[in-house]
Amino acid sequence: MTRLAAERTATSHLRTDGDRLWQSLMELGQIGATEKGGVCRLALTALDGQGRDLFVAWCQAEGMAVRIDEIGNIFARRAGTDPGRRAIATGSHIDTQPTGGKFDGNFGVLAGLEVVRTLNTHGIETAAPIEVVAWTNEEGSRFVPVMMGSGVFVGAFTAEFARQQVDIDGKSVGDELRNIGYAGTQPAGLVPGGMFGAYFEAHIEQGPVLEAANLTIGVVPGALGQRWYDLTVTGMEAHAGPTPMALRHDAMLAAARLVDHVNRIALSHAPHGRGTVGFMQVFPNSRNTIPGTVKFSVDLRNLTDEALLAMDAALRSACAEVGQATQVSIAVEQVVYYPPCHFAPDCIASVRGAADALGLAHMEVVSGAGHDAVYVANKAPTAMIFVPCKDGISHNEIESAEPAHLKAGADVLLHAMLAQAM
Amino acid sequence: MTRLAAERTATSHLRTDGDRLWQSLMELGQIGATEKGGVCRLALTALDGQGRDLFVAWCQAEGMAVRIDEIGNIFARRAGTDPGRRAIATGSHIDTQPTGGKFDGNFGVLAGLEVVRTLNTHGIETAAPIEVVAWTNEEGSRFVPVMMGSGVFVGAFTAEFARQQVDIDGKSVGDELRNIGYAGTQPAGLVPGGMFGAYFEAHIEQGPVLEAANLTIGVVPGALGQRWYDLTVTGMEAHAGPTPMALRHDAMLAAARLVDHVNRIALSHAPHGRGTVGFMQVFPNSRNTIPGTVKFSVDLRNLTDEALLAMDAALRSACAEVGQATQVSIAVEQVVYYPPCHFAPDCIASVRGAADALGLAHMEVVSGAGHDAVYVANKAPTAMIFVPCKDGISHNEIESAEPAHLKAGADVLLHAMLAQAM
Repeated sequence: MTRLAAERTATSHLRTDGDRLWQSLMELGQIGATEKGGVCRLALTALDGQGRDLFVAWCQAEGMAVRIDEIGNIFARRAGTDPGRRAIATGSHIDTQPTGGKFDGNFGVLAGLEVVRTLNTHGIETAAPIEVVAWTNEEGSRFVPVMMGSGVFVGAFTAEFARQQVDIDGKSVGDELRNIGYAGTQPAGLVPGGMFGAYFEAHIEQGPVLEAANLTIGVVPGALGQRWYDLTVTGMEAHAGPTPMALRHDAMLAAARLVDHVNRIALSHAPHGRGTVGFMQVFPNSRNTIPGTVKFSVDLRNLTDEALLAMDAALRSACAEVGQATQVSIAVEQVVYYPPCHFAPDCIASVRGAADALGLAHMEVVSGAGHDAVYVANKAPTAMIFVPCKDGISHNEIESAEPAHLKAGADVLLHAMLAQAM
Repeated sequence: MTRLAAERTATSHLRTDGDRLWQSLMELGQIGATEKGGVCRLALTALDGQGRDLFVAWCQAEGMAVRIDEIGNIFARRAGTDPGRRAIATGSHIDTQPTGGKFDGNFGVLAGLEVVRTLNTHGIETAAPIEVVAWTNEEGSRFVPVMMGSGVFVGAFTAEFARQQVDIDGKSVGDELRNIGYAGTQPAGLVPGGMFGAYFEAHIEQGPVLEAANLTIGVVPGALGQRWYDLTVTGMEAHAGPTPMALRHDAMLAAARLVDHVNRIALSHAPHGRGTVGFMQVFPNSRNTIPGTVKFSVDLRNLTDEALLAMDAALRSACAEVGQATQVSIAVEQVVYYPPCHFAPDCIASVRGAADALGLAHMEVVSGAGHDAVYVANKAPTAMIFVPCKDGISHNEIESAEPAHLKAGADVLLHAMLAQAM
């Protein structure tokens, strides 16, 4: 038996403490708890400061060294035995939506803490340091851009730009970081010993796929690219009664046909195509007036840029066809583009291998939404672990997850990190 | 030559005075004139009172006898020579939308006055009395129900009910009638000498059909029946990214497909079918959230009850089909029903005959909207005369009509009435 094989055997019995993880989630969830069982802990508020203090205290109690960077990201490190090894990192965020839940983000951070607690409990040393990160302002509810801390970390935008952003009351990120005591000095992106050797993020799925398949672990191969559009249909406002069908320029009819096209475009770019019209405004919005103007959003997603570009072309072609058929004009403006993200095969294999070794049934689930891991993947080998959430509901006070699923996710995180850190 | 033939020959040369008609329209349009060239003269306001006073003064200057009924309808009569004959009536309304035009309603009333002025100018007597009516609150902008005066006149609802209706400031129809001096005593529906022998209403088309056909006179065979519905689609609100297409319950997709169905239902019940979705509300109306609820209106119209019932059945069938295909529930509530209205063949023939005798090109144009004539048709032989309005636009300050078209409409009204009144 080689030394590596011997160490793996020595750690293969390790399991996280699901009760301890659950208790910490519930304790953190008390800070900003809402009447309906959710959490309102917006980024860089006093409540966020209390949550951060609790997390930092827990990390320090485990003997971890805590650093704060210039955008307030918290890095808690458990030392490794080999000074030449880069840190194996995990993390997520503890800020929430205004009517958010207890698990979105918080699970990923506390699962990382639970990995460290488990290693400490069993006296396991790792060659590489283990680092747990709480990224600043992932939600973007109070300050935009979203995923602010990880975005600064990878250089998507500067710390200076991020610190200048203000909330609706005109309070800046920079001032609020100082007010809660998290205006750190470490330059963003600078990791002692070099950039992470690997980064894992455990997260509730925020979708219905695992629950529908009755499986516990989602192995995440990457995240969908996104193209968002604003469309404006301009027809001619007219009385619903006196205007025969053939003489109409019905902006609502055109918009409706495009909603159906968006659906068909997504279906014809399976399995990862997504197409959504979530927002629509109708003018003048009177029941017996043919709408003269309809504004709506289109959100297209897919796992490759080729597929996303094909969907873009199909949308523009549908606009031309529908505009001509319904005698209206249609303006299409792309307002957001996020490229698709492909996680590192080696890290994905570590997640899959951990699930297999633990006897946990799993499937591939792409991330449809953005996560801090999607930014980090630009700088370090990265993968994600999904666990089910009830009815796929997130960003909602009724967001819910099973303790057993969360423990399973933490166990997979533990063994995926050990596979990289031993 | 018979006496009737001799009289017809004697009047066949008669023409209204287009300039006089236009001047009166412009003078009445000064009362409540808006900066953009429209009129705001809401029913039973002080401005409506001023407009009524001007109309009454004009009628009295022509020697007409004016009566006011208990809902404020104004009846101005020019006596006939044969006491056994019922009055041949015409009219419309002089109240306007908040941002209304100078022609909607006002044209019909002043065209009637112009008929009397023309007869007086030329010293023509008619066997039957000629009566010009200004109906109270046709628009329904300030008080509902719409077409209030004609509705009370035919007994669709009582004068007592109508007088109890209040505007958004709590002012009642009854009080406001007294305030402007038009709380009459004549019981509604009581016409001296008996119900009208015939009723004609001249009106701008409020649609694009005549203009598109480049014709001046619309002979109106009747008015479309209407069924209005409120639909509520209930799906499941979910994140646009993490929710695969197959697991969605997308209320927007279902609503969009129904909008397209409404259009196809109207087209497949040609030539008179109309289908409109004018109002839509989306919840939560966020660009990256699949809508959980969409509420929208459906307005179906056709010229026969059979066709309207077939459209109703097609709508309900489409809801069942779309609901199943998109995995949402759809509630359909009918909120309004107006039966189709078929005007009197004899009156329609008088209109067509007048246009032919005047050498005015004409076509059949059904009324897509409600008019006082639609109510009156329940009690008296009725027909309508349409003239074009610019771009089919009405209920708008930019509503516009050509003086030559208005004169042509008044000429047709004159000769249609003479055909019934000699």
